[in-house]
Amino acid sequence: MPQGNPENVPEDGLTTRQRRTQPLLIVHTGPGKGKSTAAFGLALRAWNQGWPIGVFQFVKSAKWRIGEEKALLALGASGEGAPVDWFKMGEGWSWIQRPGREADHAADAREGWDRIKADLAAEKYGLYVLDEFTYPMKWGWIDVDDVVATLAARPGRQHVVITGRDADPRLIGAADLVTEMTKVKHPMDRGQKGQRGIEW
Amino acid sequence: MPQGNPENVPEDGLTTRQRRTQPLLIVHTGPGKGKSTAAFGLALRAWNQGWPIGVFQFVKSAKWRIGEEKALLALGASGEGAPVDWFKMGEGWSWIQRPGREADHAADAREGWDRIKADLAAEKYGLYVLDEFTYPMKWGWIDVDDVVATLAARPGRQHVVITGRDADPRLIGAADLVTEMTKVKHPMDRGQKGQRGIEW
Repeated sequence: MPQGNPENVPEDGLTTRQRRTQPLLIVHTGPGKGKSTAAFGLALRAWNQGWPIGVFQFVKSAKWRIGEEKALLALGASGEGAPVDWFKMGEGWSWIQRPGREADHAADAREGWDRIKADLAAEKYGLYVLDEFTYPMKWGWIDVDDVVATLAARPGRQHVVITGRDADPRLIGAADLVTEMTKVKHPMDRGQKGQRGIEW
Repeated sequence: MPQGNPENVPEDGLTTRQRRTQPLLIVHTGPGKGKSTAAFGLALRAWNQGWPIGVFQFVKSAKWRIGEEKALLALGASGEGAPVDWFKMGEGWSWIQRPGREADHAADAREGWDRIKADLAAEKYGLYVLDEFTYPMKWGWIDVDDVVATLAARPGRQHVVITGRDADPRLIGAADLVTEMTKVKHPMDRGQKGQRGIEW
């Protein structure tokens, strides 16, 4: 955790206090572990600050992130801290009804992003966790320039964390804080599969 | 999150199930952000699995990790999931009474490690978060070889996460999973100081 005085003080006309309370766009990328986990750890801080949290998961998985989801929903329901909403792509986009419709992941992803745009415009959350949101951008389902422009224009004080490998350079350019998680060593390398409680 | 089949299946005589439930030593190191945050995110999964969690913070800070502490203690007290113990170095080592004693960080760190060794021997926790534990090793207060040998010999199924920059090569060698967090971009670079809810 960086401490003390920053090396460069920008000539932006802002006080330190104004500058330090600016809303952040945070990106966790790279091939290593901990991208999403660190985003959910950040959500604990937001919860403690009383900032409403919206989690949007963009890549379907049989396992999702059950542990984090149960824990954050329990915190959200605790009566302390902040409320927590948790949405999963596809059937988990609870605001959409589509009986019998065929699965269309690209359409699902776009519907998720449309919802996030509406929530940003309404200043609904203090922290958005857009989990594995780099992938629908990488796959061309969601327009990176639209994401960057929307986030740059978001009103109020809304922090956004985006996770996933292969973050687009435009997204990295727009972000305030970017961390790359690099794999140094992983149990998969020696034939160990993921385990409950560690991987999900 | 890695999915599917591992590339190499070791000839260790273990079944996949045995192999995947082996206790892990996890290290989050590197100069970037997210090392501790990801460890606390991992604690959410452990909590959901009902694994008792012991957090030991090894570097004193005015801010500690207030958000994570409040959230994890709230989860621990929720009656669901697992219990959570949270210890801070020095005055936070609640099992030690020392009225009027002068501060001695090296002694504090060693007392913390002695407690962890006793807890490991007693199989007290399912997940140990040893936050910023690389530093007392780096500063020579705690013997790396002792840490590596103790962890290698720990009984039962106890997962251990160690965070902090400059992890010793011996620790990395002993670890099952190592992630290096690399700073790509940080608000401090443009003169922005840390802010509440994001940094702590």
